[in-house]
This record gives sequence, C-alpha cells and structure tokens, in this order.
Amino acid sequence: MLTNYSKILENAVNEIAKLPGIGRRTALRLALHLVNTETAEVKMLTHALTELKSSLKICRHCFAISDGEVCDICSNLKRNAGVICVVQDIRDVIAIENTNQFQGVYHVLGGVISPIDGIGPGQLKLQELFQRIEAQNIEEIILALPSTAEGDTTNFYIYKHCVEKIPKISLLARGVGIGEELEYINEVTLGRSLLTRISFESQYGKIFD
Amino acid sequence: MLTNYSKILENAVNEIAKLPGIGRRTALRLALHLVNTETAEVKMLTHALTELKSSLKICRHCFAISDGEVCDICSNLKRNAGVICVVQDIRDVIAIENTNQFQGVYHVLGGVISPIDGIGPGQLKLQELFQRIEAQNIEEIILALPSTAEGDTTNFYIYKHCVEKIPKISLLARGVGIGEELEYINEVTLGRSLLTRISFESQYGKIFD
Repeated sequence: MLTNYSKILENAVNEIAKLPGIGRRTALRLALHLVNTETAEVKMLTHALTELKSSLKICRHCFAISDGEVCDICSNLKRNAGVICVVQDIRDVIAIENTNQFQGVYHVLGGVISPIDGIGPGQLKLQELFQRIEAQNIEEIILALPSTAEGDTTNFYIYKHCVEKIPKISLLARGVGIGEELEYINEVTLGRSLLTRISFESQYGKIFD
Repeated sequence: MLTNYSKILENAVNEIAKLPGIGRRTALRLALHLVNTETAEVKMLTHALTELKSSLKICRHCFAISDGEVCDICSNLKRNAGVICVVQDIRDVIAIENTNQFQGVYHVLGGVISPIDGIGPGQLKLQELFQRIEAQNIEEIILALPSTAEGDTTNFYIYKHCVEKIPKISLLARGVGIGEELEYINEVTLGRSLLTRISFESQYGKIFD
C-alpha cells in the first residue's frame, strides 16, 4: 500500500499504523477520513490525544491513571478504603468498575511478576502496596490478577507479605463463566469448578419452601 | 465500557471512537497505549494528523489530495497527460498507482452520481473534467469507477458528454467483480484490468447514434 505520492499523507499513515492492531490499510482509511473531516473535529481529536500525555496523572494512592493527584475512586468518601482490589492495569479497574459490584478501592501493580520478561517485584508497585497496608487499617485484599502462572506467582508474593497483617486475603472466584458452554471450557477450569462446586441456593437464592 | 472516572481518558476515548470502524473498546485500548507511549511519539502522531488538515491541498488539475498546488502525478513530465483515468476518490488513485500499470494522469470526481444519496452531477468534479477535455488534447479517457449502478450511471453521463470529443473512451476490463470497490481488489487483478481495458461500446453497447 504505497502512498508515496504525498509525503504528508504517507507520514500520517506511518504514524497511525504504529498504533497496536492498526495496519497500513486501516491507517490509510483513517487518514483519508480525517482529510474529509472538519478541521475543528480533527483539532478536538489531536487535543484529546495530547491531553493524555500532558494532563493525565497517576493517582498517588492506587497508581491508576487519574485527572488529579488522587483519582475519583480514592477520593470518593463513599468507597470503602479498607478493601483493596489488586489489579494488573487500568483496564482491569475499568472492567471491574463496569460490573458495579465493587465498592472498595484499587491498587494498580502495573503488571505481574514475570522473570521470563525481566519483570521482578521491584518493577511493580508492590512496595507501595505494602506501605499502604502498613499506613492504613485494611480489612481485606482482593487479588484480581490474571489466572496465569505469573498471576499466581504474584498472588503468592503478596500473600506471603500480607498474611500476618490483613484479616482477609481473597481471590476472584474461579469457575464456569456466566453464559459459557461447558464444551468450550478448558479441562482445568471445569475440573476445579466441580471440586469447588457451590450450593444451588447460593447461586439462585432459596426459590422453593 | 465506562471510563467516566477520568474525564481526560473518557474524552480521548470518545474522540477516537468517532473514527470509522473503531468501537469504544478499541478506542480505550488505543488511548491506554498512548498513555504509555513517549510524549515525543504522541506529538509526532498528533502533528501528522494536524498536517492532514493544515498542509494537504487539492491538486488543481486532478482534484487528488496533494502536498502542493499541483500533485506529483500531474507535475510529472513522464506521465502521459493525454490519458485521463477518472476515479471516484483518492483511494482509487493509490490503488491504481500500486499496480504500476498506468502512466497517464487522473481525475478524481469525489464520488459517483447517486440520486438516492442526493449526489447529482453538480456535486462532482464533472464540469472540471469536461473543461480539462476542452482545454487539452486528450487521446483517451479511462473510466475506472466502481462497478455499481451508480458507477454505471456516471460512466454513461461522462460518455455522453465526451464521446464526440475524445478518440477513445475505455473501461477497466471485467475482472473487477460486480459490486466490488476498487480499493479492496488485489493488485494483480486491478493491474490486469487496466492492461485489458475494453471500449465503452463493448460493455454497454452502442447506445447513442
């Protein structure tokens, strides 16, 4: 897909194609769309992108991206600051917020321990988590890290440092996803779901007397 | 996909999601990618996008987008200015250029006649095409419009205005699938269609006497 007859277009296509998951054909489509868009609209886009770097901050409590020094969740007095949900990155905060099931606060590690990728505990916001635990009265830590070997390693690392200090350390429930067909679930998950089966009433409530 | 705990992030997601084919989930992924990108890189992106509006021009001969007043193709003395390839938009110019089979010049109509979309001849660069034909000695017009009802209508319209004045009016050879848009055709097929272009009459019959 040559666009070399216009250096300005070519440059825009090159820059857009650096974005993850955007190929040169899509980049060209987007660039030409912008050519035909009102200048004011394009300015709104470039301004919004610039703001991501110039104005976004990292919350000094939970390390989620934030508009201010402290994010809206950490500064919300209705949230229970005694329950910390530990996640890998900001996308997980957004995913959990979208469930409307969590009223505590977060701690964004910035990844999980992965020696093969050269990520040790020092590169993650783990010391900051332990300092939060020392400084505050925390009643529960929910480990909401990915269910992978690296996630497990990180879970163990946090557990080891916190088990003496925190009354409750919990994990997201593991099992069959809502709406999932059994035949598509991996065997480990399905086997685990059988072993850790739950009572009918705990799922559906007591429907017959 | 709520991102409403950060207005800056939300704003960026909204702006990115206005782009065609980009949903809110992808927009969030791109925005978070930019958050983690070097400021200089993001500046290069926003600068390139701004340039699309501030610096790109429309070639005053062929109406393709251009870095200067006249595009690189129209100003290239090696191109045969006596052969004009009429296309719908700039994507088609890029697609045809990529075949390396065409040494003439282009005329970008900016669309095709489509009464259902309220696009009549007046909204397209048709008068400008006819003026080019009057002003210059044109040996051939190649109609490379989409193979749709609207493309056919536009072909007829141009043919009717030019048949007395131009020695040869040709069409891309069949090989272009019915209903297909030029930009999605593989280069070999598109190049072949150019090389084996057929006379207007052999496709549509002799309709004007």
